[in-house]
Amino acid sequence: MRPSGRALDEMRPVSIETGVTKHAEGSCMIRVGDTHVLCTATIEDRVPPFIKGSGLGWVTAEYGMLPRSTTSRMRREASAGKQGGRTVEIQRLIGRSLRAGVDRVALGERQITVDCDVIQADGGTRCASITGGWVALKLAVQKLMKAGDVTSDPLVDPVGAVSCGIYAGQLVLDLDYPEDSEAGVDGNFIMTASGRMIEAQMSAEGSTFTRDQMTGLLDLAEKGVQELAELQRAAMNA
Amino acid sequence: MRPSGRALDEMRPVSIETGVTKHAEGSCMIRVGDTHVLCTATIEDRVPPFIKGSGLGWVTAEYGMLPRSTTSRMRREASAGKQGGRTVEIQRLIGRSLRAGVDRVALGERQITVDCDVIQADGGTRCASITGGWVALKLAVQKLMKAGDVTSDPLVDPVGAVSCGIYAGQLVLDLDYPEDSEAGVDGNFIMTASGRMIEAQMSAEGSTFTRDQMTGLLDLAEKGVQELAELQRAAMNA
Amino acid sequence: MRPSGRALDEMRPVSIETGVTKHAEGSCMIRVGDTHVLCTATIEDRVPPFIKGSGLGWVTAEYGMLPRSTTSRMRREASAGKQGGRTVEIQRLIGRSLRAGVDRVALGERQITVDCDVIQADGGTRCASITGGWVALKLAVQKLMKAGDVTSDPLVDPVGAVSCGIYAGQLVLDLDYPEDSEAGVDGNFIMTASGRMIEAQMSAEGSTFTRDQMTGLLDLAEKGVQELAELQRAAMNA
Amino acid sequence: MRPSGRALDEMRPVSIETGVTKHAEGSCMIRVGDTHVLCTATIEDRVPPFIKGSGLGWVTAEYGMLPRSTTSRMRREASAGKQGGRTVEIQRLIGRSLRAGVDRVALGERQITVDCDVIQADGGTRCASITGGWVALKLAVQKLMKAGDVTSDPLVDPVGAVSCGIYAGQLVLDLDYPEDSEAGVDGNFIMTASGRMIEAQMSAEGSTFTRDQMTGLLDLAEKGVQELAELQRAAMNA
Amino acid sequence: MRPSGRALDEMRPVSIETGVTKHAEGSCMIRVGDTHVLCTATIEDRVPPFIKGSGLGWVTAEYGMLPRSTTSRMRREASAGKQGGRTVEIQRLIGRSLRAGVDRVALGERQITVDCDVIQADGGTRCASITGGWVALKLAVQKLMKAGDVTSDPLVDPVGAVSCGIYAGQLVLDLDYPEDSEAGVDGNFIMTASGRMIEAQMSAEGSTFTRDQMTGLLDLAEKGVQELAELQRAAMNA
Amino acid sequence: MRPSGRALDEMRPVSIETGVTKHAEGSCMIRVGDTHVLCTATIEDRVPPFIKGSGLGWVTAEYGMLPRSTTSRMRREASAGKQGGRTVEIQRLIGRSLRAGVDRVALGERQITVDCDVIQADGGTRCASITGGWVALKLAVQKLMKAGDVTSDPLVDPVGAVSCGIYAGQLVLDLDYPEDSEAGVDGNFIMTASGRMIEAQMSAEGSTFTRDQMTGLLDLAEKGVQELAELQRAAMNA
Repeated sequence: MRPSGRALDEMRPVSIETGVTKHAEGSCMIRVGDTHVLCTATIEDRVPPFIKGSGLGWVTAEYGMLPRSTTSRMRREASAGKQGGRTVEIQRLIGRSLRAGVDRVALGERQITVDCDVIQADGGTRCASITGGWVALKLAVQKLMKAGDVTSDPLVDPVGAVSCGIYAGQLVLDLDYPEDSEAGVDGNFIMTASGRMIEAQMSAEGSTFTRDQMTGLLDLAEKGVQELAELQRAAMNA
Repeated sequence: MRPSGRALDEMRPVSIETGVTKHAEGSCMIRVGDTHVLCTATIEDRVPPFIKGSGLGWVTAEYGMLPRSTTSRMRREASAGKQGGRTVEIQRLIGRSLRAGVDRVALGERQITVDCDVIQADGGTRCASITGGWVALKLAVQKLMKAGDVTSDPLVDPVGAVSCGIYAGQLVLDLDYPEDSEAGVDGNFIMTASGRMIEAQMSAEGSTFTRDQMTGLLDLAEKGVQELAELQRAAMNA
Repeated sequence: MRPSGRALDEMRPVSIETGVTKHAEGSCMIRVGDTHVLCTATIEDRVPPFIKGSGLGWVTAEYGMLPRSTTSRMRREASAGKQGGRTVEIQRLIGRSLRAGVDRVALGERQITVDCDVIQADGGTRCASITGGWVALKLAVQKLMKAGDVTSDPLVDPVGAVSCGIYAGQLVLDLDYPEDSEAGVDGNFIMTASGRMIEAQMSAEGSTFTRDQMTGLLDLAEKGVQELAELQRAAMNA
Repeated sequence: MRPSGRALDEMRPVSIETGVTKHAEGSCMIRVGDTHVLCTATIEDRVPPFIKGSGLGWVTAEYGMLPRSTTSRMRREASAGKQGGRTVEIQRLIGRSLRAGVDRVALGERQITVDCDVIQADGGTRCASITGGWVALKLAVQKLMKAGDVTSDPLVDPVGAVSCGIYAGQLVLDLDYPEDSEAGVDGNFIMTASGRMIEAQMSAEGSTFTRDQMTGLLDLAEKGVQELAELQRAAMNA
Repeated sequence: MRPSGRALDEMRPVSIETGVTKHAEGSCMIRVGDTHVLCTATIEDRVPPFIKGSGLGWVTAEYGMLPRSTTSRMRREASAGKQGGRTVEIQRLIGRSLRAGVDRVALGERQITVDCDVIQADGGTRCASITGGWVALKLAVQKLMKAGDVTSDPLVDPVGAVSCGIYAGQLVLDLDYPEDSEAGVDGNFIMTASGRMIEAQMSAEGSTFTRDQMTGLLDLAEKGVQELAELQRAAMNA
Repeated sequence: MRPSGRALDEMRPVSIETGVTKHAEGSCMIRVGDTHVLCTATIEDRVPPFIKGSGLGWVTAEYGMLPRSTTSRMRREASAGKQGGRTVEIQRLIGRSLRAGVDRVALGERQITVDCDVIQADGGTRCASITGGWVALKLAVQKLMKAGDVTSDPLVDPVGAVSCGIYAGQLVLDLDYPEDSEAGVDGNFIMTASGRMIEAQMSAEGSTFTRDQMTGLLDLAEKGVQELAELQRAAMNA
C-alpha cells in the first residue's frame, strides 16, 4: 500500500505549463504531484572555452531550491556562500542528461543554460527538472529555428526522467517524498522517448538489491518515461 | 507620457494570491504588473543570540532573484559564492520594514523568516516584497493565534511599500522597469495603512532633487500605499 | 537634554585636515566629534567595463572600520572573509552620493576610488565619510586640473551629509553614538551646498514617524550641511 | 582491440598494500594499473549531530587528487578555495557505498572517516577508492575489535567497485584513462563479494545505450568485483 | 650612499604617540620615517579553546594595510574575501614575537589582541608593528595592573624589532621602501631590550649571503633595537 | 638524550627516490625518518603576469598535507575552503628558497611549479620539501636540457634545508616531531651545497636565545645540509 494510495506502477498527476515567464527564451512550470519546478532556458552567443571555435554547441544546467520549498526551511545557498554537494551533483546530472539528447553540431556554436528552480518539493525534483528542462530547451530551440539561426532540429528524440525504488519491499514508480525518505533502494532513470537509455542510477542506502529487482525497476521506468514523453509532446504543441 | 500609458498617479494592476505553497506557515504570490514575487513565512522556535531570553520576537527577511527573472540572465548568487551588495541592501530593508510593524512583545520569543523570491522582475521588486511579505507574515501569525501560541495580535497596522520617482521630468507612482532605468530620482516609501511612515528613501542617480519634489513624491506614495492596504486586507480575508 | 549637552540643532565640533598621507592623490582626516575617518582618493586610468569607451568618468567608494574603532572590538572583515551587509550598504551610499555631485563628462574616462576608513567611531561614520570623501575627491581632481588632464571642473557644487533623528521625542541634529543607539527614528541626508538634495533616508527601527517630523528633520539637515559646506571650503583653501 | 592489449573482460593488475602510514588506524595503497590511491581510515569518538544519541555509527569519506596526479597539472582545490563538483560527487558516492556494507548498530556510536587521495591517476579512481577504502575501513574496525570496543563484526560482506563501459563499440571491463576518455558509455558498479548490488550508475556522454548493453556491462562488473574481493581478502590476511 | 642620505647604521626618525584612540585599552601610533602604524590592544575575558582552564593568558595579533597606504592602491582584503599570504605571515610573526616577551602565567587566563593597521607604508611595517604593538600591549596591561586584575607584571623585558639588509653591497640598518625593493638580502630581527633574541629571519631573494654578512646584520640589529627600547620606555612614561 | 637515541648532531636516515610518478616532468619521494614528502615538478609555457615578456623564468611551490599524515586527522584544506596560515607561510618559503638557487635568465621564460605533498609527517616537513623539491626541479630541468629547450644549466648549486633547535637545553640537528613539539627554539636553515646561505629563520616560542646559541645552530645546519647535498647528488645520478 503506497501512502498516496497509488498503484505500484502509477505516476502522480503531471502537468507541464509552458511560457510562464516573459523574459526567458523557453520556459515551463512542471508539476509532478506536489513537486513544482520552474524551468527556463537562456540562449547565449558564447560557449565554454574548451569548445571555442569547434562549431559545436553546449547545453548546461543549474539547479536550486527555494528556501521554503521543503517541509522545514533550508538555508539559502547564496547566503551559505556555496552550493551544497547535493545541488552540484543534481545540476551536473541535469546538464549531462539534456546534452545526451542534443545534436551539438546542429545546434551550432552557442550555449543554452537551463535553470531548474524548485518552487515546491515533494520528491523527484531532479527527474522533474530533466523532464521540464527538456521542454524549456526545446522551446528555446524552436525560437532559434523560427529565426533561421538553426536549420536542422538538434532535439529529435525527447528526454525524460523518472524515479523508481523499493518501498516497503515493493517495486514502485515515481516516489513521492514520504516514499523516498523510507525507500531502501532508489533509482533515477533518464531515457529518450524512443526507449534508449541515457543514464541509470540505482542506489541503496543502508541496504542492497539484486539484479532481478534492477530489471523490475527498469520496466517501471520505461513505462513512466513513455507517459512523460506524451505529456511533453502535448505541452509543446499547446 | 509613461511607456505603459498609465496616468502619473496610477499603479500597475496588483494581485495577491495566498496559500501558494503547501509547506510554508504563510505564503503568497504578489504580482505588481509583470513583477512577480513569491513570499513565504517560516516560524521557528528560536531567536538570534542577541535577544535570547528577552521574551521578544524577531522578524527577518531574505531576498533572491531567480537567474532568469530578468531580461538577460543574472549569475546565480549561490554559484557566485555570495550575495551581491544590492541583495544584501534589499533584504535588510525588507526585514527592518516588516519589524517596524510588529509588536515584538506580543509575538513572543520566536522568529519568523520571510523569504521573498523574485520569479519575474519588471521594476519595484523590493516594494512588492515588503507588501507581499507582510501578507505572508500575517498569515503565519494567524496560524499562531489560531493555535493559541500568540494571544494578542502583534500585527495591527499593515505595512506596504511603493516606489515613486521623477521620470521625464514628471512625478510618477509605481515605476516599472523601463521607467526605473531612466529615472533621475527614485524613491521607496514604506508606510502603514494608517498613514504613519516607516522608511523613506529618495535617491538621485547622477542628478538632484528639491524639497518640493520630495513632497510631491510623498503624496503619490501615500495614495499608493492606501491602495495596497486595501488589496492586502482583501487577500487575507479571501 | 542631549547626553553631550548640545542644543538640539547643534553639530559636534568638526575639523577637516587635508594632505594627511603622502601616497594618495587626495586625502583628509575628518573629525566629527569623536568620529574620525581617514578619506583618500585614488585616480586610475581605467573605468568599469560597463562605461568603457563612453568618455564618461566613474567615482566609487569603499568603506571600512578598523577593528578597534568601536567600543568593543569588531571582527576584522578581511579575516571574516567578507564585507558585512552594513559595510556594503554604506559604501554603495557613499559612492552614489559622491557621483551625484560629479560632472562625469568633465571628469573624462578615468576612475577615482574614495576609501573611507574609520579610525575611531562615535556615530555618523557614513555621513562623515561622504563629507570628508568629497574633500579628498576634490583635492584629487585639483591635481588633474593643475596637470591639465581635466580642463573644466567636474565638481562644482560640494556634497555634504549629516544625520538627524528623533531622540527622546526631540528632533536632533548630528546624532552621536549614545543618541544613535537609542533613537527611534534616524535619517541620513545628503545635499549639495546650494541646497539641492541627493539622497534622503529616514528609517524607523521598531517605531514610526509622521510627515511633520520628516519636515523638521529636513530643516535640521539643511542647517547642518550648510555648516559642513563652509568647513569643506575652508579646508580646501587651507 | 584495447589500447593496453587487454582482453575485453580483463582487469588491470591490482595490488593492495596495507599498513602504509604509521598514524592512521587503517591504511592501504591500492594500485589498479597506473591508478594509485592512498586510503586511510580514522576513528573518532563522535558522530554527526543528526545521529547523536542513536547508538548508531557513521562512515564517511573524503576524496582528493594530488595536483600532479594527472597528465597535466590540476589546480589544487585548497588553493582554489573549494572542492569541485566532481570531487563532491565522488566522495559522496564513496561514503554511501561503504556505509551500505556496514552494520551501523554493531559499529556503535563512533565515526570512521575514510580519506582517499589519488597519488597517480589513470582512470577508475573512484572505484579504486571504494575497493581500497573498504580495506582501510576493515583494518580500522579490526583494531576496534581487538581492543574489545566492538564485539560483533560490523563489516561482514566486503564491498568492491569496478567500472565498465562501451569502448569502440565493445563492452569492456575496467577502463583505463585512454579508454575512459573515448568511451561513449561508462558505468560504475558497486557490489558486495556475495553478489548483492549497492550502486549502479551507467551514463552516456553524447550517446545512448540499450538494456541489452546494460546487462552485458553488469556481467562484466560481477566478474570484476569477484576478482577484487579475492584481492581484498588476501590483503587483509597478509 | 643610501637614497635617504642616512649613515649605514642610522635608523629613520622614530616617534611613538600613545593614547591615540579612546576605545582601546592600549594604543599608540608609531612612526618610523614615513611608515605609520596604528597599534591597539584589546583585552578580552576569554582565551582560545586550546588553553581554556589552563590559567595561562594569550596574546595574538592581526595586521592590515589601508588600501592607499601604499604608492599605488592595493585591493582591500575584506573585499577580496581573504587575507593574502603576506598578511597572514606577518600577523603570525607579530603574535609570536609579542608572546615571547610575555609571562603568560602572570597575565592570567585572558586574551589580548593587538591590531596593527598600517596607515602609511614606506618599508619595515612588520617591525614597526611589533615595536609599537609592544607599547599598546604594555599600556593595556598597565590598566589591568592598576585595576588589580594582574598583580605581577607579565611584561618585564621590552620587545622591539628592526630590519637590516644588504643594499648595493652594503650592510644597512632599517631599510626604507626604496632600499627594501632593491635589497638582495633582507632580515628582520626581534629582540628584547636586554639583548636576548626572539626571532631572526634572513632571506635572500634571487641571491645568497655569507655567515660573516649575517653577523654584521645582527650587529646592526642590536644597535637598532637598543635605540627602539629607549623610545618605547620614553613613550610609556610620557 | 634525544627521544630517538640519536647523537646531537645526527640526522635521521634520509632517502630520496626519484621518478615516482609517471606524469610529472620531475618527481621524488623524500623520506627523512618518518617524514615522507612527495615532490613533483611541472613545467608550463607561461609565467606570472609581472614578468611576462622579461625573458626570465619563474619557480613557485605549493605545499599540502594529506588529512591523515598527522597523528590525529587534520581537516582537509580543500573542504575548509582555504589554505591555513601555516600552509601559506611554508609554501612561500619553499618557493623563495628554490628560486634563490635558480639562474632565471638561463631557465628562460617558463614556469616550474613544485608541489610538495606530505604523505606522512614527523617533524621537518618544510625542510624535507625544499630538499626534495630541489631534486624534482633539477630532474624537470634536465628534461628541458635534454630536449635542447634550455642550453645553460640554470641550477648550478644545489639547495637543501634542515631544521635545528634547542631541545632540553641542548643544540640538536634535524628535530623530529617529539623534539619539535617540546623545543623552546627552533630554526630552519636553507643553504646551497657550496655553503652560501639562502634563508635562516630562528624562532623562540615562549622563550629567547643568545647569539652564541645561534652560532651553534648554524654549525649544525651546515653539517646537515652538506650531508643532504651528497644524497641529492646521488639520487639524481641514480
